[in-house]
Amino acid sequence: MTPSAALTDLPLVDGHCHAIFGGAPDPAAFALAVTEADVAPPSGVSLVDGPAGLAIRRWCAPALDLPAGAPIDEYLARRAELGPGEAARRLMGAAGLSHLLLDTGLEGPALAPPSEVGRAAGAEVREVVRLERVAERLAAGDVGASAFAGAYVDALAAATVDAVAVKSVLAYRHGLQIAGDRPGPTAVRTAAGRWLARRRPARLDDPVLLRFVLWCGIDRGLPVQIHTGFGDRDLRLAAADPALLQPFLRAAEPSAVPIVLLHCYPYHRQAGWLAQVFPHVHVDVGLTVGQVGARADAVLAEFCELAPFGKLLFSTDGYALPESYLVGAAQFRHSFARLLTTWVTDGALPPADADRIAALVGAGNARRLYGL
Amino acid sequence: MTPSAALTDLPLVDGHCHAIFGGAPDPAAFALAVTEADVAPPSGVSLVDGPAGLAIRRWCAPALDLPAGAPIDEYLARRAELGPGEAARRLMGAAGLSHLLLDTGLEGPALAPPSEVGRAAGAEVREVVRLERVAERLAAGDVGASAFAGAYVDALAAATVDAVAVKSVLAYRHGLQIAGDRPGPTAVRTAAGRWLARRRPARLDDPVLLRFVLWCGIDRGLPVQIHTGFGDRDLRLAAADPALLQPFLRAAEPSAVPIVLLHCYPYHRQAGWLAQVFPHVHVDVGLTVGQVGARADAVLAEFCELAPFGKLLFSTDGYALPESYLVGAAQFRHSFARLLTTWVTDGALPPADADRIAALVGAGNARRLYGL
Amino acid sequence: MTPSAALTDLPLVDGHCHAIFGGAPDPAAFALAVTEADVAPPSGVSLVDGPAGLAIRRWCAPALDLPAGAPIDEYLARRAELGPGEAARRLMGAAGLSHLLLDTGLEGPALAPPSEVGRAAGAEVREVVRLERVAERLAAGDVGASAFAGAYVDALAAATVDAVAVKSVLAYRHGLQIAGDRPGPTAVRTAAGRWLARRRPARLDDPVLLRFVLWCGIDRGLPVQIHTGFGDRDLRLAAADPALLQPFLRAAEPSAVPIVLLHCYPYHRQAGWLAQVFPHVHVDVGLTVGQVGARADAVLAEFCELAPFGKLLFSTDGYALPESYLVGAAQFRHSFARLLTTWVTDGALPPADADRIAALVGAGNARRLYGL
Repeated sequence: MTPSAALTDLPLVDGHCHAIFGGAPDPAAFALAVTEADVAPPSGVSLVDGPAGLAIRRWCAPALDLPAGAPIDEYLARRAELGPGEAARRLMGAAGLSHLLLDTGLEGPALAPPSEVGRAAGAEVREVVRLERVAERLAAGDVGASAFAGAYVDALAAATVDAVAVKSVLAYRHGLQIAGDRPGPTAVRTAAGRWLARRRPARLDDPVLLRFVLWCGIDRGLPVQIHTGFGDRDLRLAAADPALLQPFLRAAEPSAVPIVLLHCYPYHRQAGWLAQVFPHVHVDVGLTVGQVGARADAVLAEFCELAPFGKLLFSTDGYALPESYLVGAAQFRHSFARLLTTWVTDGALPPADADRIAALVGAGNARRLYGL
Repeated sequence: MTPSAALTDLPLVDGHCHAIFGGAPDPAAFALAVTEADVAPPSGVSLVDGPAGLAIRRWCAPALDLPAGAPIDEYLARRAELGPGEAARRLMGAAGLSHLLLDTGLEGPALAPPSEVGRAAGAEVREVVRLERVAERLAAGDVGASAFAGAYVDALAAATVDAVAVKSVLAYRHGLQIAGDRPGPTAVRTAAGRWLARRRPARLDDPVLLRFVLWCGIDRGLPVQIHTGFGDRDLRLAAADPALLQPFLRAAEPSAVPIVLLHCYPYHRQAGWLAQVFPHVHVDVGLTVGQVGARADAVLAEFCELAPFGKLLFSTDGYALPESYLVGAAQFRHSFARLLTTWVTDGALPPADADRIAALVGAGNARRLYGL
Repeated sequence: MTPSAALTDLPLVDGHCHAIFGGAPDPAAFALAVTEADVAPPSGVSLVDGPAGLAIRRWCAPALDLPAGAPIDEYLARRAELGPGEAARRLMGAAGLSHLLLDTGLEGPALAPPSEVGRAAGAEVREVVRLERVAERLAAGDVGASAFAGAYVDALAAATVDAVAVKSVLAYRHGLQIAGDRPGPTAVRTAAGRWLARRRPARLDDPVLLRFVLWCGIDRGLPVQIHTGFGDRDLRLAAADPALLQPFLRAAEPSAVPIVLLHCYPYHRQAGWLAQVFPHVHVDVGLTVGQVGARADAVLAEFCELAPFGKLLFSTDGYALPESYLVGAAQFRHSFARLLTTWVTDGALPPADADRIAALVGAGNARRLYGL
């Protein structure tokens, strides 16, 4: 069996994803959801006319009975004809996912509830709790500065009873250049007072509190997923290099709590090194694989330059469009199989190892790490 | 028609280039002009014996009636035999350029006037005005600190009457780690006083004034080209990462004035992300393609990982040697066609889209952006 | 003759390596020595199951009479059967090295003496003296702060009588973000007083003294090797980008003393630029090639994007395991030959140049640079 075949038949564990839109996006909303852009491009430029859009035309059109590569207008017309529910079932079903590890930290009326996402995918849903969101919910109540730390610990415990992981969006709120050590009680109390005193502390962006919730995540003992690398422009890219986390990774190492670096691109080689030298660090290829489309062969290869194969994790980072799940899964199956086949052909990889590695990265590592 | 054929026949718009030497360089001057080095290497090392030199031997030798890959000594002998005028006409003519967008900010008796460059290339010349140069010309006169800001605005307006773009060399003068916002009138006046008070303010390197002229460029409404990434060693590479421009890009976004990140290597993946998430940001592959020679296939592919195809622009960054125009154009045609063909073969790209994308990157995007 | 054949028969100069273990490592010690990790991974993960481990199974198994790609357990059993001495002779002999430039700055009872390493490899051993080690030996004596600078100069002169190069591990002790200029006598005396006053100054980590010993290395006139890029987690990766050395490289340029940037990954493109624009800067591919295994084709190609071919140097960075020498050499021969063949096939490189470049990078550049 070639690595390609091994991956074709393998139910994938989607180690990091979000909910889909509950309804049908119009063409403009669809185009925005294809990439990380959040405003429309100037006249003459289409966000769909890029690697991620090509990947949708390639991998998703057949699930809607169109030929691979069908023009985007035909694709959207067919999608509208089927309706959002049928399109989601077809697209997410074709992704072949056994589990969805769903970050529930993004909310809004436009998003479908987790159970509906799981039904569309035919997959078991497990929750990933966003650390900052728990603090923000707390701040919406009447907690005071002195009680904040204790209340957060309790709230996080309650929120994660059934969760398989927690997640940090530090990269969006401050950047990854933080001190490694856990902030002391006084510093947390002072920072909480400052933050809560703002009229509407909708967004946790205080660097002390961001470190505090990250350490509370470590204390919880569940794997900690950390957004690193690119995303939308709300983050500063140069501050999202996972190598900047090195002081924190070193400080957290004695806990032995697994840390999963998400996305990583264009700093994925740095992430691979971190996964090699820190026993608790793992790397997730989600978002990147879907966004770079046909270039995923090369980018996955770069992820594999230093990281042990037992530390690499598949995910889609699917969000909003059911297409993002299918593109993430199909492009991964295709590109990772091509990469492994290249190595087998080069004589660098025994075929039996290729199948084994495909199964690890696609599902086995996640099952072990998240206790599925 | 394969993408290769589409690109072979396409007149390219050279979105960023400079003048050529007026006369014939001796072998040492020729060798220095091949790369970004500006001093000779130690004994035993040749600057021509690298990727850029190989690309010259490959792409330029046939234009001088020699076989591709002819040894550099034979090449230089044949070049001398033909004389600089005939060599320039052959080399630049073979580049197949319809327009040259010429940065006129480099001056000197050794450089040919723009019109002569255009004649040699058989191309229409349009001007790109270097923002810092306008300030430096002003400082050579008798402007005072209080009048500087107003005088600069007037001088820039006059200098750009017929221009299609302006250009910033901030990377060479300070680095790209600047505050995003426009400096206020007082700060500009103070900085102008400080700068003009130096005996010979030949070089604009004051960070406040550099930001000021950049914002004046935005106000002009023409596309703003910004040098990013590698160049000669007069810049500090780590300070030329275009991701450092993020605060400025965010601040300039409401203007909707197009910004073109030039060169970008080795930070071209960062540039691709900027082009995806900021509607006004575009990316130019010039200099990089010619300098990396046969590696242009891979580097162009990396440029294409996140950027929409409508945001990518060809240029040669041709300078001094007519060879740099031909190498930039020929290597681009060859490598971009190979990249697109790879995607077509992989099933990732419908052939009709390949031809369309080739035409966009090679000419269409520049025609739209620069109003040609 | 294809580039592959040229490289197969070429005795390589190993421009940077260390001693091997004197005895036989147990499986856990073996696994740790395969990568840059220095603690065991969590249950379910093997450090051998990654690119470097695959490369050992591929390149080393045949030297022990096993088929390429034999499972690691079989490999270790066969290795134990042969005994460490026979295994070392077979593995290092198969590497085909003419010279070992051995960094003698790592000591310990577990390491074999240089002469034994040379015998196992059938190669001539030449010494590379670690600059920081000379200071640390001095501090173990009774030198005072005032006498330190002079004593260091004398000690370095004595230590390097037969050396071919010196080496800096600044990246491990402080990071590469240093001021470029040579520290003055007063600053050195003050720093020496501070450092020597610590009870056991086992480790030179004072930034002033680190710069001082680096400049003493320059004064010695021998090539200065500088660790850059990845290594074990004792360094901070983001501070190991060789581009951070730019102020020092500029300051040291008038000396014309060659500087060799070691390893470089994942900042090897930055290193290639430095080698292009600074006449005295060279780049060594050691450690990287062995660690990335089958990905060495692509990574070597990236090293070759800007650097002149006369500035690129092969080494293994072999250390502890004789396997690291063979993997470094065999993977280099294989991958560099494949790269050159790709260029020949593409029409980018005349075949005669391919053979010449292979000989330069594999041996000729090192012979010239280190005076072998």
